[in-house]
Amino acid sequence: MEDGRVRILFLPENRYITVDRGENLLKAAMLADVHVNASCGGAGSCGKCRVVVEKGEVEREPNPKLSEAEAAQGFALACRTRVLSDLEVRIPLESRIGDKRFFERAEPQPAVGHLLSADEWEKRLPAWEPDPPVRKVHLKLNPPTLDDNTADAERVKRGLAVQEGIRDVVIDYRALQRLPNLLRQSGWDITVTLINTEEERRVVRVEQGDTTGRQSAIAIDVGTTTISAELLDLKSGEVLARASDYNAQVAFGEDVITRIIYATKGTGLAKLQSVVTGTIWNLIVSLVEKSGVEYGDITHLVVAGNTTMTHLLLELNPRYIREEPYIPSATFFPWTKASELGLRIAPGVYLYPIPCVASYVGGDITAGILASGVFNTDKLTLYIDIGTNGEMVLGNREWLLACSCSAGPAFEGGGVKHGMRATRGAIEQVRIDKFNYEPMIITVENHKPVGICGSGLIDALAELFLAGVINEKGKFERDLPTDRVRVTENGAEYVLVRAEDSATRRDIVITEVDIDNLMRAKAAVYAGIEILLSSMDMEVGMVEELLMAGAFGRYLEIDKAVTIGLLPDIGYDRIKFVGNGSLLGAHLAALSRGMLSRTQDIARQMTYLELSKNPDFMEKYVSALFFPHTDLDAFPRVREELERIRSERKLYSEGGG
Amino acid sequence: MEDGRVRILFLPENRYITVDRGENLLKAAMLADVHVNASCGGAGSCGKCRVVVEKGEVEREPNPKLSEAEAAQGFALACRTRVLSDLEVRIPLESRIGDKRFFERAEPQPAVGHLLSADEWEKRLPAWEPDPPVRKVHLKLNPPTLDDNTADAERVKRGLAVQEGIRDVVIDYRALQRLPNLLRQSGWDITVTLINTEEERRVVRVEQGDTTGRQSAIAIDVGTTTISAELLDLKSGEVLARASDYNAQVAFGEDVITRIIYATKGTGLAKLQSVVTGTIWNLIVSLVEKSGVEYGDITHLVVAGNTTMTHLLLELNPRYIREEPYIPSATFFPWTKASELGLRIAPGVYLYPIPCVASYVGGDITAGILASGVFNTDKLTLYIDIGTNGEMVLGNREWLLACSCSAGPAFEGGGVKHGMRATRGAIEQVRIDKFNYEPMIITVENHKPVGICGSGLIDALAELFLAGVINEKGKFERDLPTDRVRVTENGAEYVLVRAEDSATRRDIVITEVDIDNLMRAKAAVYAGIEILLSSMDMEVGMVEELLMAGAFGRYLEIDKAVTIGLLPDIGYDRIKFVGNGSLLGAHLAALSRGMLSRTQDIARQMTYLELSKNPDFMEKYVSALFFPHTDLDAFPRVREELERIRSERKLYSEGGG
Repeated sequence: MEDGRVRILFLPENRYITVDRGENLLKAAMLADVHVNASCGGAGSCGKCRVVVEKGEVEREPNPKLSEAEAAQGFALACRTRVLSDLEVRIPLESRIGDKRFFERAEPQPAVGHLLSADEWEKRLPAWEPDPPVRKVHLKLNPPTLDDNTADAERVKRGLAVQEGIRDVVIDYRALQRLPNLLRQSGWDITVTLINTEEERRVVRVEQGDTTGRQSAIAIDVGTTTISAELLDLKSGEVLARASDYNAQVAFGEDVITRIIYATKGTGLAKLQSVVTGTIWNLIVSLVEKSGVEYGDITHLVVAGNTTMTHLLLELNPRYIREEPYIPSATFFPWTKASELGLRIAPGVYLYPIPCVASYVGGDITAGILASGVFNTDKLTLYIDIGTNGEMVLGNREWLLACSCSAGPAFEGGGVKHGMRATRGAIEQVRIDKFNYEPMIITVENHKPVGICGSGLIDALAELFLAGVINEKGKFERDLPTDRVRVTENGAEYVLVRAEDSATRRDIVITEVDIDNLMRAKAAVYAGIEILLSSMDMEVGMVEELLMAGAFGRYLEIDKAVTIGLLPDIGYDRIKFVGNGSLLGAHLAALSRGMLSRTQDIARQMTYLELSKNPDFMEKYVSALFFPHTDLDAFPRVREELERIRSERKLYSEGGG
Repeated sequence: MEDGRVRILFLPENRYITVDRGENLLKAAMLADVHVNASCGGAGSCGKCRVVVEKGEVEREPNPKLSEAEAAQGFALACRTRVLSDLEVRIPLESRIGDKRFFERAEPQPAVGHLLSADEWEKRLPAWEPDPPVRKVHLKLNPPTLDDNTADAERVKRGLAVQEGIRDVVIDYRALQRLPNLLRQSGWDITVTLINTEEERRVVRVEQGDTTGRQSAIAIDVGTTTISAELLDLKSGEVLARASDYNAQVAFGEDVITRIIYATKGTGLAKLQSVVTGTIWNLIVSLVEKSGVEYGDITHLVVAGNTTMTHLLLELNPRYIREEPYIPSATFFPWTKASELGLRIAPGVYLYPIPCVASYVGGDITAGILASGVFNTDKLTLYIDIGTNGEMVLGNREWLLACSCSAGPAFEGGGVKHGMRATRGAIEQVRIDKFNYEPMIITVENHKPVGICGSGLIDALAELFLAGVINEKGKFERDLPTDRVRVTENGAEYVLVRAEDSATRRDIVITEVDIDNLMRAKAAVYAGIEILLSSMDMEVGMVEELLMAGAFGRYLEIDKAVTIGLLPDIGYDRIKFVGNGSLLGAHLAALSRGMLSRTQDIARQMTYLELSKNPDFMEKYVSALFFPHTDLDAFPRVREELERIRSERKLYSEGGG
């Protein structure tokens, strides 16, 4: 296999999957849609996920549920086993709940789910060389004489003009104040750091000698929930360190609307500004500590965030973002001194906020469109980033059309009885046996389950629907032969984890109310996609590539999302994960002034479609309040899958039921 | 006469002069070179300056030395009399010391001394319309809708582009923060204030409604000794108020060199910066109080100062200005937030420092060259500004050549035994009778004499020389029939004011040492002028116009300055006073972006000639250590005057001696 990837063949299903070396074996099974009993989410406490490693190498974590003698025979607890080489793994009968015979018919096939590799990224972008928007230039100047008595500042400008052809330069006040002594101490041998963009040529720092070999920048994705950052070496373009943390603003409200309301009261805006700056500063400290880079080598920060996050970071009034007609203070932002935002960094360090498009299509989307190369492709591409809001962009190198719909907090675990964010113990993957309705779960960090996060909910919905536990309207079948479905005074619910296996010692359930909330969220996203397409006189089938961005997209299982009708049924091979497109876009803009300038072009060219008052939106939304959709013809693969499962179930009930 | 000017005919001299209505009659006599006894400097205490007003109207200040009966007969004390109309004034014998007969030969002739009038200024400049570099634009914007949901900032930019054709605008952070609420409170009817120059288009303030009718700016001349400021109405271009005060930095040293030394020690620079800002702030308060303009209507400040003053104001390191090869930190400066310099003014108010040329040719000279139209004339012009340093510029619309010489503090009253600045009680004008060597003096504000200021010293030198009290080398003739010249242990001296008439109750004298200091100062200036000319292969006679700038130039009597050889003898009609050219240049740049842009052209185009190492300078300097010069042929009018006086004295001694 190519470097770092290994292939696992699961028996008796005869299904294989390619994963990263070191992957958890239970996760690999789940990705391959191979059912292994697992009730504790991967915590290693139930001992039910026992498998036999028939070929290849694994690393077993010692566990009281598995003796050394058993390990010597090839047994392993899937949830406590890391994959080290290509493998053949057999799922013994006791670790499976269903009958094996149906699986044996399947040909070896790859499981779906494709995160773009670095190479694939590269191909999507136009050729570019590292040429950072903030640049260091080493200057060896002639010392002044009585005959050549140009002032210090003008001598530096002359040097930049003669040596680099850079003209019309402004020198920052602080740099100018330091310049005279520095020039003389250094023997007229200095390095100037300058913002070097089309709009601005500004010397922001001067140093002694040649420091051009030492330059780094930080790319930051300021998400509503999570802030992620990368420290980049500008010579090599390499990522020297990564760090992420919750946005400390979460304490003031989970979603952008709550924060806008907080910001418009009293000193709320200043408070939110200082809090997000605090998180960013902690990340910078962590990046510096991890990488060993010096603070003084950091020359600039590039930040991508949604429109509200960008406003709050810059302490701009966000109030009118949430009031019709939804107008931000600004969508383009100048280079801003990081120290003026409260970051305790040298005064010569500037921050560039990636431009936004509209109140609900922010710099994170602009950055994602840059990073994923949508602006550079001939293919009709649909770019989707789902969080509290779903942002969708349709287009190619010729045009870009964007919209946003309020998905509500359901996909982030909000408004769902046992919903939670994707933190430790959150159920992130779910399988439900189509015959006996028993669940298989994996939790974040393999801890005992605490609740369910967004991707787990979508999995659960899709699986409950495919297993026939819920119908097209999202209502439970109440007469199934399982005690997992039960009726309470608030309606029916499905018990995903029983109290004895949960970290909370209470049952973890999915209710009809939860399903209703999720149904409305997915309907809004799908209706948004349809509006984008119809406003261009296009249809779903014409989409050549669908790119899923965002942390949610990273863990989402595409086929499950298609099954419930969140994503259009356009063929799994056309769907790719872009991971954190916002961070990657900020990363590119930090390395290349050409890329930075593209973010401006993208934000300027993108047309924003306001859905809230679109007369067709409501109609399309109502049609989407179905699993997968009222128009099943638009979901051929889902129909096929449903038919396959029905026939399997029929065979099963005829054969051994 | 033309408005505000009156003509006075003095009898029996038969000499007339044109002065402003309201002028002091003693001053008028002095300007006309008509001798009136005056020992108390115009304080009204000696009663010796009695004259007869034969025709015309005057205003007499009541004085115990003049009875009402005498006033009714036409008598007046010249020093306590204001001129109200054209006059004929007779100087009675008792008010004159010399014999009258020599004067009677003179034809009526105008006295010299010509301060350019506003009209004359106007003619020197290219046509320009008020079009301030900081401009207010009234915008009535369309409110946003769901279909036109451009962000607030971009809506304002769009308005500026559509309505005014102003593009690539940056909006200042503070203005941007206020923008959203302001737009909505104002009903989308706002006035934006923007810096609108070639290099920069920056919105610095936003206000509700149309405030374009209210805009003012402040022009400031930051002198080493005095700071002068004008508050300008930008609609009419009128000066609404004027104020000036001593630069509070004087407490830290009288000249720029002392201040540079102070600035390079410890926190000296910050101290000097805050002190000059304090003086400027006091002037702003005073201008606002005088004019009734609101602080909020002030949109910008334009400052002209010498290179050191500009550095100290901006807190830039001035150290290398005084160390060979004399290099400033910068000569061009960006628009700077006034609040960042410590001025307690709105954050949207920016300050523009007029660019400098070199360490000793500053923004004050650039401004003066602008204001006096030297950059716009075909005439070969010599522009001179004398203070502690003498700055000289030679050129025309094609080229400009500048130099600076250290004149020493003598012209500002320093290094002279009874020297003082031109404050109350300073002797500013002096006449010495050619026959009996008695002086006639006028003091600043007509108070009892305290000491002698620069213009008084030059007068005294010229008069002592013409009267034959000192010789060409500046040494006293020790055998004259007067007790005014006496020899002390430190050399000879002339008693200008006797103890009984002085405010200090001590004699006020001019010593040989004083004369030696002044001789060296004037020699340096004249040698500088010669170097400028010779480096262009030109001669003094080719200078078509000589412009004297600065406070010193304002009070200087041209013929006296020529007599001692400070200024070249090019014909008095070619010599003009420009007054405070620095302030007037700042004034023009505050009103017109075209004029402001010219200051940059001027600073860029002016060639600076360093005198200190020029091999010819020393030779020319030594030749100038003579009254008026070793080469008397270069001073034909002075030679003529000397010959006339000698023949008069001969006649006098023959006739009545």
